[in-house]
Amino acid sequence: MLIQEKINTAIQKNNSLVCVGLDTDMTRIPERLRSDPTPLYSFNKEIIDATHDLVMAYKPNTAFYEAHGAVGIQQLKMTCDYINQVCPEVLIILDAKRGDIGNTNRGYARFAFDWLNCDILTVHPYFGYEACSVFLEREEKGVVFLCRSSNRGGGEFQDLIVQGESLYVHMTKQILQFWNKNRNCYILAGATYPEEMAELRAVSGDTLFLVPGIGAQGGDIKKTIQAGKNSYGAGLCINSSRGIIFASSGTDFAEKARKETQTLKDSINQYR
Amino acid sequence: MLIQEKINTAIQKNNSLVCVGLDTDMTRIPERLRSDPTPLYSFNKEIIDATHDLVMAYKPNTAFYEAHGAVGIQQLKMTCDYINQVCPEVLIILDAKRGDIGNTNRGYARFAFDWLNCDILTVHPYFGYEACSVFLEREEKGVVFLCRSSNRGGGEFQDLIVQGESLYVHMTKQILQFWNKNRNCYILAGATYPEEMAELRAVSGDTLFLVPGIGAQGGDIKKTIQAGKNSYGAGLCINSSRGIIFASSGTDFAEKARKETQTLKDSINQYR
Repeated sequence: MLIQEKINTAIQKNNSLVCVGLDTDMTRIPERLRSDPTPLYSFNKEIIDATHDLVMAYKPNTAFYEAHGAVGIQQLKMTCDYINQVCPEVLIILDAKRGDIGNTNRGYARFAFDWLNCDILTVHPYFGYEACSVFLEREEKGVVFLCRSSNRGGGEFQDLIVQGESLYVHMTKQILQFWNKNRNCYILAGATYPEEMAELRAVSGDTLFLVPGIGAQGGDIKKTIQAGKNSYGAGLCINSSRGIIFASSGTDFAEKARKETQTLKDSINQYR
Repeated sequence: MLIQEKINTAIQKNNSLVCVGLDTDMTRIPERLRSDPTPLYSFNKEIIDATHDLVMAYKPNTAFYEAHGAVGIQQLKMTCDYINQVCPEVLIILDAKRGDIGNTNRGYARFAFDWLNCDILTVHPYFGYEACSVFLEREEKGVVFLCRSSNRGGGEFQDLIVQGESLYVHMTKQILQFWNKNRNCYILAGATYPEEMAELRAVSGDTLFLVPGIGAQGGDIKKTIQAGKNSYGAGLCINSSRGIIFASSGTDFAEKARKETQTLKDSINQYR
């Protein structure tokens, strides 16, 4: 299946633009899970069980698993396998932010697309098209390119002016115009400033944006959706990580995660 | 120990600017090792045994280990442990090309600096200083920032003109001027074009460059050293991966790797 078809199916299945970020920080999972032999996986499994009928995607961030070495990576694998078993129509976006030369990227493609069976990988485009083409030649897989991040201080290089426009706008245009032969290029678009979201939408057609940095505040959501939605009232994959998975630090964490996911889903759908 | 002291010691110990890249591609290791329970580690161990008195650094690239999932990552750990045991004065540069927001980079710092006990990590600076500061606050560790890569097509964004200079020059200056409070910022400087190396040296003082993309050709080495060496006749960490570790595909691979390493070391020292 082409990745764009899988994305459309994922959105329609649960009528949702919500992505739950599995930034599973060991220091924040409930006490009772810390003595579990696979605590990251067991935590994720409860989150997935509680939310998989409300989301379009899960987004594990590799850093939280690598922090625990090989046993952490093994639990990332168990998590991805579980998602593919329980809700195969929901996307897995591996937030690994990789970016090397072509020959080397082949190893990352094997890791993300073949070993973990993820659908979409986040990638630094800075080394150019040729380096990234080993990801893009897989038309059943997608790449989210990191042009505009949502962190404080993210503008240090991203806001530099090249050829009369911001570097992140220039990169976005270049990628969507010249790298997108297989229709599998997507864009990271931080939700911090709605006017930047609108600027990116204006140059991106109906392309899906991965949107980090959103809180549970209705105001931000409204502005983000209005600025960023595409002509189908979609085109956004809106991520919340800590706001959902750590909504409660108690034994009711999964129940609270479901509640937060439902609230975010409804808020988003209200403005689509 | 401050990282710069460790770098100076590593260079002096073997009077060498050579870095051996442990890009251990399973399809290229000798037949007899493929049935080994830990083939990547066993291959690396023989390379390390044969070369550790000739080098300043080893540079494992994570992609070649991640390609095999958790068991690959475990062999990366065994490799780093072995280097730290056999030749603790030799640097380990983890070529992982990570780059996320601050909170998330903390997980990568734990992976590279604490779990693997590497000395230096390669990092994409695109998310800005604040994101990268979690690496830089570790003054006993170093960061090689990816400003100028050596791959074909690397100039697509890197050569864009910002404020009257190339983006990679602008990034390099910004990093060395404003990010380098702990004197632990280093720069990737592809050896493809000596004139670019000279341009980077002109704005970088005596800062160490990690130099990929060099062949075994004396001409390239001469131009690279002359363009890139610092005022101490050093300041370069010159990497060769496949040219050394896969110099022979037979059972004599370690012996041939030693010969290539010796040749590269001598060629470099001739022009320092």
